[in-house]
Amino acid sequence: MKKKILITNDDGPYSPGLKLLYEAVKLLGEPYVVVPETPKSATGLGLTLHKPLRISKVKIFNITVYLCNGTPSDIVHLAISEVLNGYPDLVVSGVNIGDNTSIQVILSSGTVGAAAQAALLGIPSIAFSVDVSSHEELVENLELRTLIIRVSRVISEYVLSESLPRNVHLLNVNYPNVIKDDINVKIVPAAMRRFEERIVKRYDPQGGSYFWLYGTPSKFEEGTDVYTLKVEKNIAITPITLNLNVTRSTLNKATFKDLLDRVNKVLRV
Amino acid sequence: MKKKILITNDDGPYSPGLKLLYEAVKLLGEPYVVVPETPKSATGLGLTLHKPLRISKVKIFNITVYLCNGTPSDIVHLAISEVLNGYPDLVVSGVNIGDNTSIQVILSSGTVGAAAQAALLGIPSIAFSVDVSSHEELVENLELRTLIIRVSRVISEYVLSESLPRNVHLLNVNYPNVIKDDINVKIVPAAMRRFEERIVKRYDPQGGSYFWLYGTPSKFEEGTDVYTLKVEKNIAITPITLNLNVTRSTLNKATFKDLLDRVNKVLRV
Repeated sequence: MKKKILITNDDGPYSPGLKLLYEAVKLLGEPYVVVPETPKSATGLGLTLHKPLRISKVKIFNITVYLCNGTPSDIVHLAISEVLNGYPDLVVSGVNIGDNTSIQVILSSGTVGAAAQAALLGIPSIAFSVDVSSHEELVENLELRTLIIRVSRVISEYVLSESLPRNVHLLNVNYPNVIKDDINVKIVPAAMRRFEERIVKRYDPQGGSYFWLYGTPSKFEEGTDVYTLKVEKNIAITPITLNLNVTRSTLNKATFKDLLDRVNKVLRV
Repeated sequence: MKKKILITNDDGPYSPGLKLLYEAVKLLGEPYVVVPETPKSATGLGLTLHKPLRISKVKIFNITVYLCNGTPSDIVHLAISEVLNGYPDLVVSGVNIGDNTSIQVILSSGTVGAAAQAALLGIPSIAFSVDVSSHEELVENLELRTLIIRVSRVISEYVLSESLPRNVHLLNVNYPNVIKDDINVKIVPAAMRRFEERIVKRYDPQGGSYFWLYGTPSKFEEGTDVYTLKVEKNIAITPITLNLNVTRSTLNKATFKDLLDRVNKVLRV
């Protein structure tokens, strides 16, 4: 029986990254494309619990695409329930326009969010992103697009056949914006931060103030996903765990004994 | 100099949980209340990068409250830049109406999202939630409200004076919905999952289909945050790390050597 592959993203149906991912995995199994009807960048693992969700089925360039008004995380659940009628064997998300490196960015990323939501259900998943700043930059670089298709296919094939090690919940893959002759692929940890947040204040025609949130790059630490991608221009694969619990040894340092004593004192008054 | 405390939430200015948190920390330093103008539940660490943000300053029951149209994560950045003019010494988020237990829920929670966003900036932070299903359930339970204020104060005071251990990025605190005589407080890890996702399909008056996403409780594993809260009815404190990188020992199992070989073969064609 053909393996089922759910393809999703956070950039919506017209992202050239979606097409690459479809090309990469279409022959590895039965592909299902379910994406947000409009871009849902930086929605993280956000879910829609207070608004009804809708799905529509359209054809885009002869490919059947399901559009949904929810977040990438919503889509994983809706796709399973209403499109695939069961769990897929693999969820691939992307290819995102713009890198998703560093824990700071990963935790806010809709692309990684979809993969993480699938991972929470026990489904092997991979998030793919490319360090370009626009659709055009990707569309105009045939060499880059070809590389992304071929490498994404190999990684997806690997995860489909070998699955992921027990403590790895998903793979986060980032492609550089140029292909140097000696391009390499590396398994690297995510940096903690990638941006210094900045706010710019502006005034509307009525004189009211408004703000834009943006980030300026932090210093890139060698050996991290950001450095591998931005400085070395290599492909970065980051195995991600969603286990947010601290280790037993951190807990055993009894740092919290004092806290518990203080709370207990209040509870026993 | 007085320590600065940022108080935020994802339920908006009229949540009775916000008032409790204000009461809890108002005397521990200089409190600043900056919250979403409308509820932003389940927005996780989502950020608003493509829409302008606004802030307004209002008085609610004699307390100065800043309202923002962004997510809890946006608010952390905006509050620092535009309200506090610098980093606070502590960020407290909540008290959320509804528990935030299990990694599955934590990663989608706006309440925890705000605390996590602060933690990524190196600011000690605490997320507070209570296992009630409505504003009313909290408002009508004076004993519970009193306990929440007193315990939240002790925990906030502790983190303000002792900070958090090196590998702990934030504390996630959950209060039960009833106070039993022998109520206790426990340091417990987060369960992986709390809900089985469910979708319900309905039809609008025009006959179009729409969907509601919701969850039904999973089995609660003993020793986890969910079990402590829901079964034991104790207070659960969960130290959270945001380090999503897998351990070196997981990596060293060479599971990925084969993957790298396969990708390299493609790169060298």
